[in-house]
Amino acid sequence: MTEKLADAERETELKPLLDAGWEMVTGRDAITKTFKFKNFTDAFGWMTRVAIRAEKMNHHPEWSNVYNSVQVTLTTHDADGLTSSDVKLAKVLESL
Amino acid sequence: MTEKLADAERETELKPLLDAGWEMVTGRDAITKTFKFKNFTDAFGWMTRVAIRAEKMNHHPEWSNVYNSVQVTLTTHDADGLTSSDVKLAKVLESL
Repeated sequence: MTEKLADAERETELKPLLDAGWEMVTGRDAITKTFKFKNFTDAFGWMTRVAIRAEKMNHHPEWSNVYNSVQVTLTTHDADGLTSSDVKLAKVLESL
Repeated sequence: MTEKLADAERETELKPLLDAGWEMVTGRDAITKTFKFKNFTDAFGWMTRVAIRAEKMNHHPEWSNVYNSVQVTLTTHDADGLTSSDVKLAKVLESL
């Protein structure tokens, strides 16, 4: 099972994501970011690319979509907090 | 512009949806329902079918997905409440 990020990993792995616009979720060991697109088709197209990658990683986002906006929250339910899987998926989201 | 549902339409159009598991959202003139699937792939596959239909109708859901669960909320932002477009989209969701 994937273990929660240790303090040192939070400094090296999590901090760059927080600098890139991700935020800690209040009351949860989770990170969130809202991605904006030109329109619904662009937003859902991006979600589809993320979905395929997430399924391949067997690690899925919590996410909500309203027209051109997608709010993504990442955490690892099995570990009850942030793990390397969340960092990896966040990096995929940033790259797409 | 699409007009908000009149009282008579709420009885004929909205009531069957509420009987089918849709619920009014507290504090908003909107309806919501949570759809459950076998896994993420089935959930996102359904979302993709909905997305294509929604784009074609030019009427989009507010929705969130966590693994095999999709919560959908329908309302018409331009009308600040429920319109025939929401009823139409809800029927599409029920049919897919």
